[in-house]
Amino acid sequence: MNNQAIGIFDSGIGGLTVVKEIIKVLPEENIIYLGDTARVPYGTRDKETITKFALELTNFLIKQKVKILVVACNTISATCLDKIQAVSPIPVIGVIEPTISEAKKITKYKRVGVIGTRATINSGVFDNKSFITQACPLFVPLVEEGSIDHPATKLIAEDYLKIFKNKKIDVLILGCTHYPLLKKVIQTTVGKKVRLIDSAGPVSRELKKILEKNNLLTGKKIPKYRFLVTDTPQRTKQIADIFFNHRFPGRLEKIIII
Amino acid sequence: MNNQAIGIFDSGIGGLTVVKEIIKVLPEENIIYLGDTARVPYGTRDKETITKFALELTNFLIKQKVKILVVACNTISATCLDKIQAVSPIPVIGVIEPTISEAKKITKYKRVGVIGTRATINSGVFDNKSFITQACPLFVPLVEEGSIDHPATKLIAEDYLKIFKNKKIDVLILGCTHYPLLKKVIQTTVGKKVRLIDSAGPVSRELKKILEKNNLLTGKKIPKYRFLVTDTPQRTKQIADIFFNHRFPGRLEKIIII
Repeated sequence: MNNQAIGIFDSGIGGLTVVKEIIKVLPEENIIYLGDTARVPYGTRDKETITKFALELTNFLIKQKVKILVVACNTISATCLDKIQAVSPIPVIGVIEPTISEAKKITKYKRVGVIGTRATINSGVFDNKSFITQACPLFVPLVEEGSIDHPATKLIAEDYLKIFKNKKIDVLILGCTHYPLLKKVIQTTVGKKVRLIDSAGPVSRELKKILEKNNLLTGKKIPKYRFLVTDTPQRTKQIADIFFNHRFPGRLEKIIII
Repeated sequence: MNNQAIGIFDSGIGGLTVVKEIIKVLPEENIIYLGDTARVPYGTRDKETITKFALELTNFLIKQKVKILVVACNTISATCLDKIQAVSPIPVIGVIEPTISEAKKITKYKRVGVIGTRATINSGVFDNKSFITQACPLFVPLVEEGSIDHPATKLIAEDYLKIFKNKKIDVLILGCTHYPLLKKVIQTTVGKKVRLIDSAGPVSRELKKILEKNNLLTGKKIPKYRFLVTDTPQRTKQIADIFFNHRFPGRLEKIIII
């Protein structure tokens, strides 16, 4: 039994969509979330910069004495998970591997579409003949601006997703934690025969498995949550609230990490 | 006569639209440009974070022994120009004041529209009955993605700019260095009777005036340019090139400032 918190981090607050699912699967665990809202987005930056920033977040959370690290960001997981694991004395889980495993289980045609940030797609982690990939860089700002049902979002989705037409994919990985909020428009665009999967479910189940295996589960108790961010413009609080369907279980605390 | 360089900085590479005009107005001056591409955009962040980042850029350029600083970013100029001036031993020019002066000269109706990032609009610098303001947060990512002529950009522009309908503005300030690239769609949307002005012209003329007044102009010579950035994904080089109509007078050098 281990009452230390689970450390979860992301380039911004997109990772809250993962936190939401982790709370469902592991309702008694303490959580410390860290979002680098002062430097978000990471998905448009180069590998060196993403790695530098991600290691700063890692070191900060390790100092908070968390028992395990969840990298709730596809961009970081795709770019430098190995570097994070190399410096971390505690277990580290990324969002990519559990999601790929899930996709492989589900696909019948062995043809899986993947959408993500430019850094995620360019990382090469999906370079395999089973995957057809597409970067969708405008999806993150559209979600952050709450333009989820805007007609412009539909036009942009049609543009990005036309690559999957006639490619016979039966599964599409939403390879960015913001994308679940665009499920409706993405589903309409790719057609209802394509099953959309995101990382929140697979990573939560993987996390539970690893905590069990390593005897790290907490005891029965009311959990404590902390949500740390490096910048708190008014807008960020509003988006956090949208991510939790207006039931955000805490408040955003601003901290300085460097 | 002073051969030291002019220091110009921005949150990213949008400020290159200002550099382009400064090169026209002052073709013999050396220039050191610094763009914080590792942490761009600033326009969505809070005042404290923008100020911290801007002072780091300021200190870096002062150490490069530049003779004058040009803050080629509306967000920084609107948020913390006073803080930069307070720490700087050399003159500092922002983009807001010269542009407001220009707008006041031109407007007949004394009703000026202003568009900018959320931080620029919320800074309060345009809180005056002559100004009607509107934040356009999606314009920067649309420009950065090269979606200048995309039908989605037209829809988003119509949404943002509808506030100016029947408001009898005759001048619209493009209060962000990225927006001149959207001139065509903005002009079509607000109508051809509204005159669009951006900061590049006014700030270049103001810069020339201050250099003359302080005896800081350089002598006749072939100028040297350095373009420093904190992150260099492939995409950034492409956008820099677009900003200069594919005649970018140098190359982007990556540097670490903190």
